[in-house]
Amino acid sequence: MDTHQFLLALLLILLFARLFAEVATRLRIPAVLGELLAGVILGPSLFGWIEPVEALRLLAEIGIILLLFEVGLDVDVQKLARAGWRSAIVAIAGFVLPFVFGYGLTRHVFALGTLESLFVGGALTATSIGITVRVMRDIHVQNTREGQIVLGAAVLDDIFGVILLALLYEFATAGVVSLNNASKVGAFILVFFLIAPIAAKFMALVIGRLDHSTELPGLIPTAMVSLVLLFAWLAKEVGAPEMLGGFAAGLALSRRFFLPFGLSLRTDENLARRIEHQMEPIIRLFTPIFFVTVGLSLNLHAVDWHSSTIWLLTGGLLIVAVLGKLLGGLIVLSLPLASRTAVGIAMIPRGEVGLVFAELGRTSGMLSDETYAAILLVVAFTTLLSPLILKGFYARFSDAIHARSPHAHAHHGHDGDG
Amino acid sequence: MDTHQFLLALLLILLFARLFAEVATRLRIPAVLGELLAGVILGPSLFGWIEPVEALRLLAEIGIILLLFEVGLDVDVQKLARAGWRSAIVAIAGFVLPFVFGYGLTRHVFALGTLESLFVGGALTATSIGITVRVMRDIHVQNTREGQIVLGAAVLDDIFGVILLALLYEFATAGVVSLNNASKVGAFILVFFLIAPIAAKFMALVIGRLDHSTELPGLIPTAMVSLVLLFAWLAKEVGAPEMLGGFAAGLALSRRFFLPFGLSLRTDENLARRIEHQMEPIIRLFTPIFFVTVGLSLNLHAVDWHSSTIWLLTGGLLIVAVLGKLLGGLIVLSLPLASRTAVGIAMIPRGEVGLVFAELGRTSGMLSDETYAAILLVVAFTTLLSPLILKGFYARFSDAIHARSPHAHAHHGHDGDG
Repeated sequence: MDTHQFLLALLLILLFARLFAEVATRLRIPAVLGELLAGVILGPSLFGWIEPVEALRLLAEIGIILLLFEVGLDVDVQKLARAGWRSAIVAIAGFVLPFVFGYGLTRHVFALGTLESLFVGGALTATSIGITVRVMRDIHVQNTREGQIVLGAAVLDDIFGVILLALLYEFATAGVVSLNNASKVGAFILVFFLIAPIAAKFMALVIGRLDHSTELPGLIPTAMVSLVLLFAWLAKEVGAPEMLGGFAAGLALSRRFFLPFGLSLRTDENLARRIEHQMEPIIRLFTPIFFVTVGLSLNLHAVDWHSSTIWLLTGGLLIVAVLGKLLGGLIVLSLPLASRTAVGIAMIPRGEVGLVFAELGRTSGMLSDETYAAILLVVAFTTLLSPLILKGFYARFSDAIHARSPHAHAHHGHDGDG
Repeated sequence: MDTHQFLLALLLILLFARLFAEVATRLRIPAVLGELLAGVILGPSLFGWIEPVEALRLLAEIGIILLLFEVGLDVDVQKLARAGWRSAIVAIAGFVLPFVFGYGLTRHVFALGTLESLFVGGALTATSIGITVRVMRDIHVQNTREGQIVLGAAVLDDIFGVILLALLYEFATAGVVSLNNASKVGAFILVFFLIAPIAAKFMALVIGRLDHSTELPGLIPTAMVSLVLLFAWLAKEVGAPEMLGGFAAGLALSRRFFLPFGLSLRTDENLARRIEHQMEPIIRLFTPIFFVTVGLSLNLHAVDWHSSTIWLLTGGLLIVAVLGKLLGGLIVLSLPLASRTAVGIAMIPRGEVGLVFAELGRTSGMLSDETYAAILLVVAFTTLLSPLILKGFYARFSDAIHARSPHAHAHHGHDGDG
């Protein structure tokens, strides 16, 4: 793809993303659905105008990393810590149930191979942080109690998912499961999440000092993007997905983030505001590219629609995918039923990590074309339907959800475009 | 290059660019030199850590397009119109002299082939708008009378250069010069520059209206980048370099741009400010990538330093390159001598278009390795030296330059980082 074609592709992506997101918003549908649809329309499923070439894939990756950075910036760590054990329950149940039932269904009902079934089960485990968060932002609930539980659980099950992926990959290539390796990867990730925010906060302080003394404009955008890229790179180095590094960096710079052990590297309010202000246009520019690319990756023509197996497999996996996460939410007995249901629904969308499972399974020869298509369809359906259900659910039951949490509030603060 | 490596490459580019630009600024050297040096250090000439792969090249291209957009935003059209005939003289003289003498030297002194000599002459014609403008910004003279003349002349000679390139390319592939084709390309470009700003201004008005009615954040960054990409794409469609489209879009949205024939599509002040404010972090993020990539493209090891021909050819072409542009400035008799000299010096840096000549000449088999290296060296030397000379010249003669232009002033306005 030469420069000329690339500029046109990027132009079409930005334009269609905005157009469909705008229409979606006016129809009271989450904007992210509009952006996904833009991708489906531009991609091989309909017009076939744009291929997700490497350069677009890389921009999309930067988009999801920056989105997670912003999510981190928005996190209220104190609330997250209070939601901590609930997030853990939701994450563990929502990880184990789809994996076990996904494996069981594929292995024992559809009689596929053990490894193929493990990959299918794995693909159903991880909630898409990006899509879930975007949906919750769109309906302004990301800072409610339920939002914090879901975010924490989505972060945790992504980590679980990636560890499982490393394990299955090991299994697929070497023929044996190395529990030793898997625990090493897990330990690295744990250490990363303990150290990264402290390091990022320290660097932000240095950037803040430099910003006062430099004559050269543009320090904050280049330095902050560098910081985010550094942590994304480090995250991958220790075996986690790159976007978790973006999340860790954002978390550290959150105005509501405090270091443990009473350490007092407090970000000054003014710097935090300048960072948010200057990073916002960059984040808004890159994130739609990610969601459009997800739509571009779906090829509806690749599916043999006349086979009944594809429908049964897809239907079965979809039920597992939905019920698995729903039960994961309902299990948190200390919340009102409406809240538990909302948490369960919000956990349903699968995305990047599920697609990585499918892709890796296919390239390592573990998945048949049919199984691959079924996974993509489940990812697509959960992604397309859950926001609609969640939105409808909130429209009807938001009183019940907020009844016992008087301090929960929608945080619109810097969502406005100033 | 996988995502992981790409993120690291991008991180190193942003980090080194900032580091060296910062050091350069503190040493009172133009920041752009620091960024070029960062590229030389990261590239094959020294560490060889980063290859200018496609994805980086595309980001660099977006960087130069956005820089030209910002340049357009900053242009004072009324001043440019007043400087119009002077710009034209500087452009024509600064185009013809290096071309004729570059061709003559290569053809008759070094006895190289006709086509090879034409490519060498062509590579010396076009002043690098990007580098020249950046240098003038760094020393805060881009809005003086001299700055406007240089900018206008650089825009014009880039257009001449691209037409010449199309002509030579035609000549190299078909064996005959099609003057018919060349004049068609020229006509297209002329029409583009007459229509593009009006169209862009109209679209900006629509964006402004939408910005008031939308609930979805992020309209300005995505819509404005789309607009810039559209005009960059259109520019290439009519045969001009993409960055000229960015320039045309910026020009149209400039607060000081008025349409001809008394049409009154005036951009509202508030919108213009919001656009500048939200585009600035994006522009600051992308432009260093361009200048680092220029440095990355130089490979000092590719040159056989023991041959005397390379030194004589490089030296001869450098003299032609410097004197050609200097005479182009001195020819504008209506200005004081110091101003004419300043204009001439500012026109010296060659860049993108020169490198395109070299690249196209090499890939079409017209240039020997030695000639190719000489062109790259001349581009590098003019780029590296002219800012230093210009800076020194302004430090010494700025009184003489400003003596007869009391209204000339350095415009620092939104260079600050808020």
